[in-house]
Amino acid sequence: MNMMNNETLDGLRARYEAFKARGLKLDMSRGKPDAAQLELSRPMLDLRDGFLSEDGTDTRNYGDPLGIPEARRLFGALLGVDPAQVIVGGSASLNLIFDALTRAVLHGPLPGDTPWGKLPGAKILCPVPGYDWHFGMCDTLGLEVVPVPTYDDGPDMDMIESLVRDPAVKGMICVPMYGNPSGVTYSDETVDRLARMDTAAPDFRIIWDNAYCAHHLYPEAERRDHLKNMYAACAAAGHEDRVLMFTSTSKMTFAGGGVSSMAASPRNIARQAALMTYQLVCYDKVNQLRHARFLPDLAAVEAHMMKHAAIIRPKFELVLEVLERELSGLARWSKPRGGYFICFYAPKGCAKRIVQLCAEAGVTLTPAGSPYPHGYDPDDSVIRIAPTYPPLEELRQVMELFPLAVKIAAMEMRN
Amino acid sequence: MNMMNNETLDGLRARYEAFKARGLKLDMSRGKPDAAQLELSRPMLDLRDGFLSEDGTDTRNYGDPLGIPEARRLFGALLGVDPAQVIVGGSASLNLIFDALTRAVLHGPLPGDTPWGKLPGAKILCPVPGYDWHFGMCDTLGLEVVPVPTYDDGPDMDMIESLVRDPAVKGMICVPMYGNPSGVTYSDETVDRLARMDTAAPDFRIIWDNAYCAHHLYPEAERRDHLKNMYAACAAAGHEDRVLMFTSTSKMTFAGGGVSSMAASPRNIARQAALMTYQLVCYDKVNQLRHARFLPDLAAVEAHMMKHAAIIRPKFELVLEVLERELSGLARWSKPRGGYFICFYAPKGCAKRIVQLCAEAGVTLTPAGSPYPHGYDPDDSVIRIAPTYPPLEELRQVMELFPLAVKIAAMEMRN
Repeated sequence: MNMMNNETLDGLRARYEAFKARGLKLDMSRGKPDAAQLELSRPMLDLRDGFLSEDGTDTRNYGDPLGIPEARRLFGALLGVDPAQVIVGGSASLNLIFDALTRAVLHGPLPGDTPWGKLPGAKILCPVPGYDWHFGMCDTLGLEVVPVPTYDDGPDMDMIESLVRDPAVKGMICVPMYGNPSGVTYSDETVDRLARMDTAAPDFRIIWDNAYCAHHLYPEAERRDHLKNMYAACAAAGHEDRVLMFTSTSKMTFAGGGVSSMAASPRNIARQAALMTYQLVCYDKVNQLRHARFLPDLAAVEAHMMKHAAIIRPKFELVLEVLERELSGLARWSKPRGGYFICFYAPKGCAKRIVQLCAEAGVTLTPAGSPYPHGYDPDDSVIRIAPTYPPLEELRQVMELFPLAVKIAAMEMRN
Repeated sequence: MNMMNNETLDGLRARYEAFKARGLKLDMSRGKPDAAQLELSRPMLDLRDGFLSEDGTDTRNYGDPLGIPEARRLFGALLGVDPAQVIVGGSASLNLIFDALTRAVLHGPLPGDTPWGKLPGAKILCPVPGYDWHFGMCDTLGLEVVPVPTYDDGPDMDMIESLVRDPAVKGMICVPMYGNPSGVTYSDETVDRLARMDTAAPDFRIIWDNAYCAHHLYPEAERRDHLKNMYAACAAAGHEDRVLMFTSTSKMTFAGGGVSSMAASPRNIARQAALMTYQLVCYDKVNQLRHARFLPDLAAVEAHMMKHAAIIRPKFELVLEVLERELSGLARWSKPRGGYFICFYAPKGCAKRIVQLCAEAGVTLTPAGSPYPHGYDPDDSVIRIAPTYPPLEELRQVMELFPLAVKIAAMEMRN
């Protein structure tokens, strides 16, 4: 911890107070695109004529609850499945996940399965650090969350293979690529082991929230992570029904007005469609058409996502550069090649205090503990850094404060 | 049945076969707006700049799951409640209803209530003829549907007041204005009795699907139905939490891309909001803003809805005129002053046959029985006529066929 040798707690506190005196109000709490990113999709709103989808449906009228063909094709391409195996939803893939879990709780994943809500204590594996919304929805639906640690290549597979011998373990929920907040992408071996493993529950389901499937920071293939096709792996292992995959355009077009999707085996899709029959007539098909016209294929997605990358890459690089310069040896952190988060591992017992110090100086971070079920980080270590939302100049100010807060918290801890 | 004296079954059949030989393919099965109606909202798509809502939120980014202020105000005005008591959703109010019922099943309507799914045989009253999607969602959620007949002023209130003495009767679901398909609007007395009645279940809820709240056919006040404010009535009766009200713009702007809403007591809204927390980050706020700018107040809604009325009124009038001319004395039907349906009461035992005859001649009607739970109309009498979707010329052709089919079915029945 060489960098601390030159700095006294008093000196750090003086600098901290000077920062605080600036009276800033900055919000780094959520993984939101910034205003410049939202501007990239303005041309999408040009859809003001020609409302027929490929199959002749007037998208402005009622229609197929599973989505218009061109939108199903787009998401099929993104998720690597046949468009017939895709349901296109409204603006929130979280809502599709929540609905799929709700159906499992009320009806069971497939016809004949026992509804999970009828079982005492159905359990869901949640790799940690993970996404607080996933934990929250499991809680809401009465599903017990079981945390599993995440390593560089994905969750602890030995532990998972052992846990799934319990028939009460009904599933797993995860962000397998550029994880929120771990930044980790599951290795091919992790994907294969998840696909192949024997589960005591025949209706075991993996909620594969592939929110960042096209969200690379760099154009060069060798500076990107690659995620193996989980559906193909499951099918190859004879477990075609095991995975429900999700993604959305929330961080491609508009976070507050995108389009979401689900992909799965034909049996799973038929089941979801059947249970959706009386839930609604159809999702917003005008917005589906807008998206499918704006992003007609993967090449268009790639070109568009590189515009996003050009905006947010400097922010990630700034954060990583400051962390490297100021905190090497004192803490560790992820160096993600995509997604929306940097995962910071503070010295044990310091995360809450760091977040508090930042808050008192005008910078709101995601609450410490939030990447863990019930907000309980046993090490009080993990802080989710979300660099995308503030403009670069504001982020620069945040990164003046953050290392100070880390060092102060660490020195207070030692005293 | 004087009109039949002049016609023989053979003569009718000859005319029927001649119609069939035209080889038409017309769909009258759903209550959909026609293309001209959809065109009315084209200017709504001009939103391509100025994406901030009144509270400064960039609607393109993540934001409040309850909706933007101007959209909550619009729906508050439509439903007659304070905007703070409104949640604005995605494109489908059915989805909001489905979610609210699902929450009652999984968690109970308010904190402390027993989840309806934990009770043996929770029952929901459904006025008939009613909306097939309502019955279907109750079935899907394991709620037993209890049909209650509808009269000119609403459902049979004596029967309802008697049924709600059963604590297993947990609620009611209905379209209280320009009913689907009854055309009936509940009288003030019906509203008051629903609001005041004693229910054995303290957590009794009325799902008030006010889909046609602004969907009058005529500009003159005296040619419109008026629905008393159900929330105000419930509050006055000391049963503020009894009603959950819903509406949407599906038949104001785009059926496939509108905005939906829910309104209820502060306690109910707080409960819904709490259980929504991990369901999604927010609904499509860009579309909410588009709608709130296009329909800023009730005067704008009124002006817009009169454009719809000008398109669909001649269709209703055509159907009613033909029915009057051809079928007086043989059958009866509703004469709605708004909404999307004419409810046709064929001679008992004839509805299925009439729908079949129409189908065989190229005209798809809503299946007979569909306005009843499980598709079972005990009288086999009710046919839902949905005049809005076909252009006037096509509707004219349908109305050549329909009376023939009714007369043939009635004569076959007598033979």
